[in-house]
Amino acid sequence: MASSTGDQSQAVRNGLRTKVLTLHSMNPRVRRVEYAVRGPIVQRALELEQELRQGVKKPFTEVIRANIGDAQAMGQRPITFLRQVLALCVNPDLLTSPSFPDDAKKRAERILQACGGHSLGAYSVSSGIQLIREDVAKYIERRDGGIPADPNNVFLSTGASDAIVTVLKLLVAGEGHTRTGVLIPIPQYPLYSATLAELGAVQVDYYLDEERAWALDVSELHRALCQARGHCHPRALCVINPGNPTGQVQTRECIEAVIRFAFEERLFLLADEVYQDNVYAAGSQFHSFKKVLMEMGPPYAGQQELASFHSTSKGYMGECGFRGGYVEVVNMDAEVQQQMLKLMSVRLCPPVPGQALLDLVVSPPAPTDPSFAQFQAERQAVLVELAAKAKLTEQVFNEAPGISCNPVQGAMYSFPRVQLPPRAVECAQELGLAPDMFFCLRLLEETGICVVPGSGFGQREGTYHFRMTILPPLEKLRLLLEKLSRFHAKFTLEYS
Amino acid sequence: MASSTGDQSQAVRNGLRTKVLTLHSMNPRVRRVEYAVRGPIVQRALELEQELRQGVKKPFTEVIRANIGDAQAMGQRPITFLRQVLALCVNPDLLTSPSFPDDAKKRAERILQACGGHSLGAYSVSSGIQLIREDVAKYIERRDGGIPADPNNVFLSTGASDAIVTVLKLLVAGEGHTRTGVLIPIPQYPLYSATLAELGAVQVDYYLDEERAWALDVSELHRALCQARGHCHPRALCVINPGNPTGQVQTRECIEAVIRFAFEERLFLLADEVYQDNVYAAGSQFHSFKKVLMEMGPPYAGQQELASFHSTSKGYMGECGFRGGYVEVVNMDAEVQQQMLKLMSVRLCPPVPGQALLDLVVSPPAPTDPSFAQFQAERQAVLVELAAKAKLTEQVFNEAPGISCNPVQGAMYSFPRVQLPPRAVECAQELGLAPDMFFCLRLLEETGICVVPGSGFGQREGTYHFRMTILPPLEKLRLLLEKLSRFHAKFTLEYS
Repeated sequence: MASSTGDQSQAVRNGLRTKVLTLHSMNPRVRRVEYAVRGPIVQRALELEQELRQGVKKPFTEVIRANIGDAQAMGQRPITFLRQVLALCVNPDLLTSPSFPDDAKKRAERILQACGGHSLGAYSVSSGIQLIREDVAKYIERRDGGIPADPNNVFLSTGASDAIVTVLKLLVAGEGHTRTGVLIPIPQYPLYSATLAELGAVQVDYYLDEERAWALDVSELHRALCQARGHCHPRALCVINPGNPTGQVQTRECIEAVIRFAFEERLFLLADEVYQDNVYAAGSQFHSFKKVLMEMGPPYAGQQELASFHSTSKGYMGECGFRGGYVEVVNMDAEVQQQMLKLMSVRLCPPVPGQALLDLVVSPPAPTDPSFAQFQAERQAVLVELAAKAKLTEQVFNEAPGISCNPVQGAMYSFPRVQLPPRAVECAQELGLAPDMFFCLRLLEETGICVVPGSGFGQREGTYHFRMTILPPLEKLRLLLEKLSRFHAKFTLEYS
Repeated sequence: MASSTGDQSQAVRNGLRTKVLTLHSMNPRVRRVEYAVRGPIVQRALELEQELRQGVKKPFTEVIRANIGDAQAMGQRPITFLRQVLALCVNPDLLTSPSFPDDAKKRAERILQACGGHSLGAYSVSSGIQLIREDVAKYIERRDGGIPADPNNVFLSTGASDAIVTVLKLLVAGEGHTRTGVLIPIPQYPLYSATLAELGAVQVDYYLDEERAWALDVSELHRALCQARGHCHPRALCVINPGNPTGQVQTRECIEAVIRFAFEERLFLLADEVYQDNVYAAGSQFHSFKKVLMEMGPPYAGQQELASFHSTSKGYMGECGFRGGYVEVVNMDAEVQQQMLKLMSVRLCPPVPGQALLDLVVSPPAPTDPSFAQFQAERQAVLVELAAKAKLTEQVFNEAPGISCNPVQGAMYSFPRVQLPPRAVECAQELGLAPDMFFCLRLLEETGICVVPGSGFGQREGTYHFRMTILPPLEKLRLLLEKLSRFHAKFTLEYS
């Protein structure tokens, strides 16, 4: 046995043995990962919930989790048709039951036919069930006004997060000054910063313009890129549209400019389009990067590399728990695409119930189907209420002194800016907390409202924000917004 | 704009533009990943299936996918109780239907109560639904004869693969000679080699002993470890029990010796125990690493770090498509455990239907429940048939000249050794193929039987094997085994 083992045995006898795996000895990249949406503030929210259950007295009776876009947790009911078909897929004995509409049964049978052993319990191929990939391609074609989509370029995933991580993994290479750099918006959805930290890639920040409702400005992309060159090798540009956490919806002109920039600077484009069905503001419209790219014609259409992500977790259905999603890749090198499939195959396949759900989302009931009327009514009710909640959020926040909120054009969040008094900033610094973290923690402790500080998403130095979902039911949301505004006023007074 | 952009524009005008992301410029670690279970042979199987559908004449009428442990794809029916409860969870309107047994309804209500918004469509906390973690802990306690399990040490996952990758991620650190080394069995399940390649860790092979029915020999662990030291920093030891692809079931003595070795050599133990319900051979019994560790007492019980993995994909239920699983960690450093939770939170949560399914697997109907009799009968029928298929496989292969097969004591695979004539080995080498890949490809082309060559799992130099599942229905399996044996005889003759 090696002598080092002898030394260790000695240490053991002396009771000095330490763990093999410690904070010090673990993967340093993992240690550097941060994920604010489920960070310390959410941990504290969980503790408060437990204290409430144990009867501890608090100035509130429930914790409101406005930290995460989780519609059904906020009381939104699942869309009937989706759950009917899924139940039939899960338990095909129900196919003979008279209590399900015929089109739901036909859809379930169609999905089961495409499954191994006609069961959701079999693995699918790693890229996802072929029939569903074809349905996704047809959806993309309809969405993009007939521009063709190839099912072979569609890969199903475990939520959009899984596919985003996979594409980022492919892109990471180099060491030191040649390390891959990836441009991400600030504020961003922290999946990006977390994944780049884990992969050891360089995060290159470009700032969205709060003065112009969080619009993306190509001159800022230029600034960020120029500054990054020399430190790393920037190879990819991430865009989130509609924006998370900003709620901004990009104009067609902006998207064209971004594509031109990516093309000229040789950047692989990642378009996070999971909120494509969540556009509320008059005058705003969702334009997919794929459609704009194709309509720009040569040299862009045939060459610019693009990956576009979508999910079953958002939209009108909010089926987060099923972890369904997909990525469509455009102009990806064929060999790289094979490598992507190989990488996906190590995890075997995305959850099959999530795949089935995605199929229903991309091919909902047609107007002639028995389930159409109810499906359409439920879908519209959700989207109309979301639009009202987006409007209400902007309105209430902008009436509060010291809070300003851009219009929530789309997605599911507001990202208002809050003035924090200098003394509050000092107090926070003494506690080793970001000032907006201090504000959000106090808010949570005193009102039970759980929102995520802007520092978790990134923001311009010296500005403070928080992200709050617009998902609570309308009347509850109104009370919440007012309570939050009042708390801010009290907080400001307290530290002035 | 930087001058490099000018150069690129020039290149574009000259039509010289290449992709940003190419096989050459992509992540070299990802390029090095191999995953035989879904590799080229499975690609070819998919093509053959398509050709058959298109009416191309073949010497067979169907492709038999014996490459992957996918019970339901092979015709195994889902367990009724599991699917009833899941259907009720998916579509709670069914809770008023008289066609479901009361205990199934109660179980569904219990699970839904524990879900956000009482819906499978909400995210769960990242470690999994608390109630289900508690049920898993109770299952582990029952399994291990009352040794306590703490739900806070249980983390639900997207299949076992997800949890295995997460724990390996934590362990990887260092550069050059200090890079983390991880001991894995040869033959292994290729998730391990693929993940280590992707993470840039060093794979340290220890060979299982084919002469002793693929038993693990601690002296071989010593050899592997000594040889690895100096090249890397070995920090972890992976054990697969029951074995994949070997089908071997470890004795209690062996597990004790492995634990002692890991303790003395300061190795974090990963115990892949996903086949814990799949033990068939008389005299074989599953002993969990956790139980053996705890029964060994000090200093092992309180100090040796261990992660044990389980899954809903195997056992008697074979619910691969739902991607359910968990890891229990033992003696893990508390700060590292927090880091693990943080890492999991970036992916939000494991699929909630898979979590629900796991709950049913770890707490099946009790003898007094209305569903007990049927559940028990279905469960036993699967396990009894698997045992018969394990026996049959060993028997038929060992009757074939040039094939030898260790007893399939557990899991779902045989890993027989095949003699290949020297001329076949030469032919393979001329084609740039591993000899057993050549054999398996020829087998696929001529019989439609898809098995995975031993080279995909690792084997001693100069020996050849393949992995074949025992999952096809008994009579079909018999024909398959005979067909395969006859093909081997013909192949041997052809190349002699």
